[in-house]
Amino acid sequence: MNAWQLDPQLANDSHPLSNGALCDIRLMDDANYPWLILVPRVAGACELFDLSASQRRTLIEEIVDAETALKGLFRPDKLNVAALGNAVAQLHVHVIARYTTDPAWPLPVWGRVQARPYSPEQLSERSRALIARLAASRQT
Amino acid sequence: MNAWQLDPQLANDSHPLSNGALCDIRLMDDANYPWLILVPRVAGACELFDLSASQRRTLIEEIVDAETALKGLFRPDKLNVAALGNAVAQLHVHVIARYTTDPAWPLPVWGRVQARPYSPEQLSERSRALIARLAASRQT
Repeated sequence: MNAWQLDPQLANDSHPLSNGALCDIRLMDDANYPWLILVPRVAGACELFDLSASQRRTLIEEIVDAETALKGLFRPDKLNVAALGNAVAQLHVHVIARYTTDPAWPLPVWGRVQARPYSPEQLSERSRALIARLAASRQT
Repeated sequence: MNAWQLDPQLANDSHPLSNGALCDIRLMDDANYPWLILVPRVAGACELFDLSASQRRTLIEEIVDAETALKGLFRPDKLNVAALGNAVAQLHVHVIARYTTDPAWPLPVWGRVQARPYSPEQLSERSRALIARLAASRQT
């Protein structure tokens, strides 16, 4: 049995923020949207039914912590949550803050506009704010 | 406090299949993809954090039951799960069976090709099969 390892494409497209009890929490490198991905550290998992019931309970609470952090920091009009995996099979959950003024609204973000990578300064500032807020979400 | 009522747009776009402990389970009227929606019967809920922790535990298990039913009946290449709500704010979760040969692959299904409504015969057959399979998923 292989140990869990982050998929190389996910590693390339996102930056580490923090670790939940189940998931690595990462920031997608796309300044068009405040966009987190949660990657359960469970080797071989592709679908939700590949997790145990206990892991799923943890996952949905970590999703809600991510939603709460995004809502608190960015005051979006809507949150989008999705586990797709058509491009990268390793189970990962997108949690995205959406605005009625963002470039893909009202459609989902995938396949609409090109990703806009963060500058080093933006990345550092956003990461610091999110790490603090995610820690606070976990305590509520 | 208002009682929960199914959003009229969701009612218009989908057909009733069965009721879980928390969610109304419905078939999207689009023969392009085997596509369920789960609508928690919780008045005013728009985001996952609007549900209680106990409701969220039930929701994720009902999502997995839906995934299991779709996987068993249709043998898709991938399952897509999403709570978006950009068009209809009432909390609802899409569970969609995807194939590498379907008209939107590898992108998400929204905003790609026009919905293809079921014929009455197709609808009746597919509903019957899904109702039976959903009942079986709940017992496993």
